[in-house]
Amino acid sequence: MEVFIEPIGRLINEFSKLPGVGKKTAQRYAYKIINMSEQEARDFADAIVGAKRKVRFCKICGNFSEEDTCEICKQRDPSVICVVKEPKDVIALEKLHEFKGVYHVLHGVLDPMNGVSANDIRIHELLLRVQEGDVKEVIMATNPDVEGEATAMYIAKLLKPFEVKVTRLSRGIPIGSELEYTDEVTLARALIERKEI
Amino acid sequence: MEVFIEPIGRLINEFSKLPGVGKKTAQRYAYKIINMSEQEARDFADAIVGAKRKVRFCKICGNFSEEDTCEICKQRDPSVICVVKEPKDVIALEKLHEFKGVYHVLHGVLDPMNGVSANDIRIHELLLRVQEGDVKEVIMATNPDVEGEATAMYIAKLLKPFEVKVTRLSRGIPIGSELEYTDEVTLARALIERKEI
Repeated sequence: MEVFIEPIGRLINEFSKLPGVGKKTAQRYAYKIINMSEQEARDFADAIVGAKRKVRFCKICGNFSEEDTCEICKQRDPSVICVVKEPKDVIALEKLHEFKGVYHVLHGVLDPMNGVSANDIRIHELLLRVQEGDVKEVIMATNPDVEGEATAMYIAKLLKPFEVKVTRLSRGIPIGSELEYTDEVTLARALIERKEI
Repeated sequence: MEVFIEPIGRLINEFSKLPGVGKKTAQRYAYKIINMSEQEARDFADAIVGAKRKVRFCKICGNFSEEDTCEICKQRDPSVICVVKEPKDVIALEKLHEFKGVYHVLHGVLDPMNGVSANDIRIHELLLRVQEGDVKEVIMATNPDVEGEATAMYIAKLLKPFEVKVTRLSRGIPIGSELEYTDEVTLARALIERKEI
């Protein structure tokens, strides 16, 4: 006899797919669902399917968007592009309410050890934006770790011919950490003190 | 402008309802969903709705069940009833593969400070089971904390007239902890060394 009845075992299994969630935590989450009203459980399920169905990527910047073009690309100064690794980095920067430009989400960084090369991330799309648009500055805001630094330097080199100012978030950010977890004061400072590279 | 687009904000909000999940963790979970295939997200949502819809309570023992009567009540020795606070305690005991009897889930314990009295938990149903069935032993397996002990003693007193053996898990379980988190060796020992009260 199985310890869990099938629908609960299945739900525990699904919750276990979430990052950092083990069997015990998944079990606690599953019990929470069982104790919800049917409406609450349906809302939860709808939010999952809805997020997956409604969220696509902005065709310009590559960030999450409900439409072809995201609200940031539609409304903000396109002459300053902030280049980040992932959508969650956009969130981290947007929380500062400091940056008035637009973003470019690479969806990864160069990582030859793990087989990620320039064609696997959105570098080509960035070059096209700089080539076609009236871009004055590109801020490299990849994480201050080995791959992030290498990616920033690589892209800076590719941008040289375009006579665009290329800057890098100042090294106020502790080396080896991740953008997402940097405190807002440090992150804001790093944005203000960005240096040309 | 909102930091999160609506479908992601909504999903983060839903994940935040899970026990111990803050905004940051909910955000990480939401990104995981976005990065799933559409089929995977649908499976996840189905598991939630399915668990909520298919899981009811066994009319005999009160444990989670897919049918009116659970598999344990259908198949096992009904002369020994193990009384627990919650369904997750059944899981903890079932994992031992030691106990051959059936369960009775109280869905709570006496807690006058928080307004939980004898009528709010499934005590009456237990008395009926003992009255009607051929029950030889009732094992009180509520948590070894103040409320759990008080509930065990209260029920033991109510069962006195029925001339049924009432036992309590031995105090190998550390006082103040919860059954769910007790290691299996300690829990198995407590089951074997249960004492009449």
